[in-house]
Amino acid sequence: MSSIDLNADLGEGFGRWTLTDDEQLLSVVTSANVACGFHAGDAATMRRVCELAAERGVRVGAQVSYRDLAGFGRRAMDVPSAELAAEVAYQIGALEVFARAAGTRVSYVKPHGALYNRVVHDAEQAAAVVDGVLLADATLPVLGLPGSRLLALAEGAGLPAVTEAFADRAYTDEGTLVPRGREGAVITDADAVVARSVGLAGEGTVTSHSGTRITVRARSLCLHGDTPGAVELARRVRAELAATGVRVEAFS
Amino acid sequence: MSSIDLNADLGEGFGRWTLTDDEQLLSVVTSANVACGFHAGDAATMRRVCELAAERGVRVGAQVSYRDLAGFGRRAMDVPSAELAAEVAYQIGALEVFARAAGTRVSYVKPHGALYNRVVHDAEQAAAVVDGVLLADATLPVLGLPGSRLLALAEGAGLPAVTEAFADRAYTDEGTLVPRGREGAVITDADAVVARSVGLAGEGTVTSHSGTRITVRARSLCLHGDTPGAVELARRVRAELAATGVRVEAFS
Amino acid sequence: MSSIDLNADLGEGFGRWTLTDDEQLLSVVTSANVACGFHAGDAATMRRVCELAAERGVRVGAQVSYRDLAGFGRRAMDVPSAELAAEVAYQIGALEVFARAAGTRVSYVKPHGALYNRVVHDAEQAAAVVDGVLLADATLPVLGLPGSRLLALAEGAGLPAVTEAFADRAYTDEGTLVPRGREGAVITDADAVVARSVGLAGEGTVTSHSGTRITVRARSLCLHGDTPGAVELARRVRAELAATGVRVEAFS
Amino acid sequence: MSSIDLNADLGEGFGRWTLTDDEQLLSVVTSANVACGFHAGDAATMRRVCELAAERGVRVGAQVSYRDLAGFGRRAMDVPSAELAAEVAYQIGALEVFARAAGTRVSYVKPHGALYNRVVHDAEQAAAVVDGVLLADATLPVLGLPGSRLLALAEGAGLPAVTEAFADRAYTDEGTLVPRGREGAVITDADAVVARSVGLAGEGTVTSHSGTRITVRARSLCLHGDTPGAVELARRVRAELAATGVRVEAFS
Repeated sequence: MSSIDLNADLGEGFGRWTLTDDEQLLSVVTSANVACGFHAGDAATMRRVCELAAERGVRVGAQVSYRDLAGFGRRAMDVPSAELAAEVAYQIGALEVFARAAGTRVSYVKPHGALYNRVVHDAEQAAAVVDGVLLADATLPVLGLPGSRLLALAEGAGLPAVTEAFADRAYTDEGTLVPRGREGAVITDADAVVARSVGLAGEGTVTSHSGTRITVRARSLCLHGDTPGAVELARRVRAELAATGVRVEAFS
Repeated sequence: MSSIDLNADLGEGFGRWTLTDDEQLLSVVTSANVACGFHAGDAATMRRVCELAAERGVRVGAQVSYRDLAGFGRRAMDVPSAELAAEVAYQIGALEVFARAAGTRVSYVKPHGALYNRVVHDAEQAAAVVDGVLLADATLPVLGLPGSRLLALAEGAGLPAVTEAFADRAYTDEGTLVPRGREGAVITDADAVVARSVGLAGEGTVTSHSGTRITVRARSLCLHGDTPGAVELARRVRAELAATGVRVEAFS
Repeated sequence: MSSIDLNADLGEGFGRWTLTDDEQLLSVVTSANVACGFHAGDAATMRRVCELAAERGVRVGAQVSYRDLAGFGRRAMDVPSAELAAEVAYQIGALEVFARAAGTRVSYVKPHGALYNRVVHDAEQAAAVVDGVLLADATLPVLGLPGSRLLALAEGAGLPAVTEAFADRAYTDEGTLVPRGREGAVITDADAVVARSVGLAGEGTVTSHSGTRITVRARSLCLHGDTPGAVELARRVRAELAATGVRVEAFS
Repeated sequence: MSSIDLNADLGEGFGRWTLTDDEQLLSVVTSANVACGFHAGDAATMRRVCELAAERGVRVGAQVSYRDLAGFGRRAMDVPSAELAAEVAYQIGALEVFARAAGTRVSYVKPHGALYNRVVHDAEQAAAVVDGVLLADATLPVLGLPGSRLLALAEGAGLPAVTEAFADRAYTDEGTLVPRGREGAVITDADAVVARSVGLAGEGTVTSHSGTRITVRARSLCLHGDTPGAVELARRVRAELAATGVRVEAFS
């Protein structure tokens, strides 16, 4: 029987502003990517999300970002390596306090937004992220795109590399994501997203943008939490995975 | 033989800006109050100060502050308790990463600037700071003013309370600080500061603003690092303490 | 025939986050208190709100705040007068660029959140706000609470003082607001809010917390835009004012 | 008789931190690039620099930047055009308040740091900066590198384009700057900087990195204010220009 982890970005409010329905999403996912204050995530929210995650047995991960509240971490930045590494470690440490206080631990790291995309190809920033993780905890798994520089460098440094897939994103024949902005890059039809989730989790395959069935090996499936209907769609994905015999559980 | 701890605020730059001569001060003090990013202190600076402190055997403390870069943490703020507690814990956690990576630990907490002054009298904010420390680590000593609400509440919560004195500040007959802004509140004559340091550390006494010799019991002496001649004065204080038979060592 | 201005806080998002339904509210109010970046309000949002307001003939005002994104400007701060004055002027100037580009002007200033409450009684900060307005434009009206230090000092400095009332807040017999947090301080029943709006705008009276009919003279009525049903309630208020013969128009 | 403008970055402190000796530099330069709060420059400092500049008859320019206090605006950022344009306008507007209050005006715009370098080649961001300037004031001159996309697009939009040269930077044979980081890119010998200033201002020539005399036409010479000895060097440059018959005056 195959199994899959479900992860989602949580705690992405800041002070007066909220974005993600943390409480509902935590009843669906097995891994929570918690914003750590650089693109979103004030301290009180971080604390609360950690408490809710611990109560529900959801794993807590640090969703590290460029320092960019105004751009929600979606503006790629040329941050010198030493600064980026330190900023990554800073965020992990801040979250760790709340995870421990809630009786759990930061159990993995996932870059957010522009940093996530940058470290697919940018070896220098990918190495800085790895350095930041090593500074914080040399045993922490890193979550990222299969084939990314980040995962390659993480593995090289002895960190567990955890691959993830996106059921609501189109793939090229080569198994990379069709860039946002291209037609059809984002799949909005809920039935299609559910069907692709089952394919990715159960058989490790998905239909590419050109109509070819391709292999995408991933130990985690990323669900988006900041769109209308996100919670309902996440629930359907989880239910359908269970119905088709895929065990939903945090990656080991 | 009496002993005294010497503490100073360090790492109070931010990005391009520097303020304190961290390297030199770390050769004098026994406890380093490291800025954690809320009033000063970028991540790379925090890392470097922790490394230097660990090399020199200087104890690392978290200098926690209101979130106020523009005001350097010197603007008192009415922060709701839950937010303040979480922000205190966040800062401690962020610093802990760098302390551990350098082979040491965050060993105490000291509020900075307006927060330091506020928690002398404000029971609500003092309790929030204590809550924040407890969230992070229920064994951390708290450094503050003798007689402050902060130290009383810290002790009540089982946290070690460490008193400190200021050789360059005038005291009232009751043993409280003469408020900044009043004439003579800050003592700038270096010889006087050295002499008062010896009195405070050796006998636990100091001459008050009115000329009376009063008792001020303190386990740590705070040296200011952000004034011209700060390093030289700190060195003189340390040398004179040694010459008069006071052992300079971190509080136990 | 009596007339009343309707004002609401707008543009209170920041980057990825939104709060107020600016487009809908701009079809109801006559004066838009636009956030200027210190408690909310990124530059692109400020531009867009100014354009929408200009299209609809809605007056643009600068909603100035403490520098406090994390607390949404709701944390009172002890900001030195010279800094506060400069920060107020800075915000007005930033908004003025977008108002002018949209073919209109910043036509008044209203403090936000904790600053609004502080300058009711705090003469020093009230004077600083007035200084900031004078720095920016010595003809700008200032919107505030009747009887506040702010309006008194604004008038003393030759700035037009514009009084406002709140239909959804309870009043004491003396005509001051019942502090938030006290029972019944905020009126949530929509029918009551509509009825009180008509009373305040038409006759300048409202029923106090104790049941007494009191006089509250105000040239503007503040509508809240950040609560569920805010737009619908604002529409009802405006319709009912029109139906009872109150002309809704920007204060002159 | 030839003439040259001297410009320098000023007001680059933030709150407690200072960087540039604004008062001394304002006695040397003819144009002041004032930081506007995004990479440096709090509101009170902006006000003070405008007042000092107005007193001394120094022209005030807006030194606009990415929003990046932590990186001092030296981290290139992929900011969407609409946001970048609005952020540029925001900064100009904020500074304009203080310039007007001091009896002068914002008279030009110069991008700072990573944005300055980016708009040499990046047409999209250069266009966004031009859009931001147009939003604020369609008559404002733009200061930049000869041959840059920024100046070309500014001219195309009807904005006066003002070229500048650097006496302390090495030039290639093609008249572009040798990138920082390459050996010899920055010229630290004071005599050489003075001599190159005279050559650039008097004849419009400079010796390139390879030893060839090349032509660099510039209406302004940029002096750096944040290095040790900056003020003394600036004074020497100005005195030598005067001694060799170059009139030092703001560009027209």
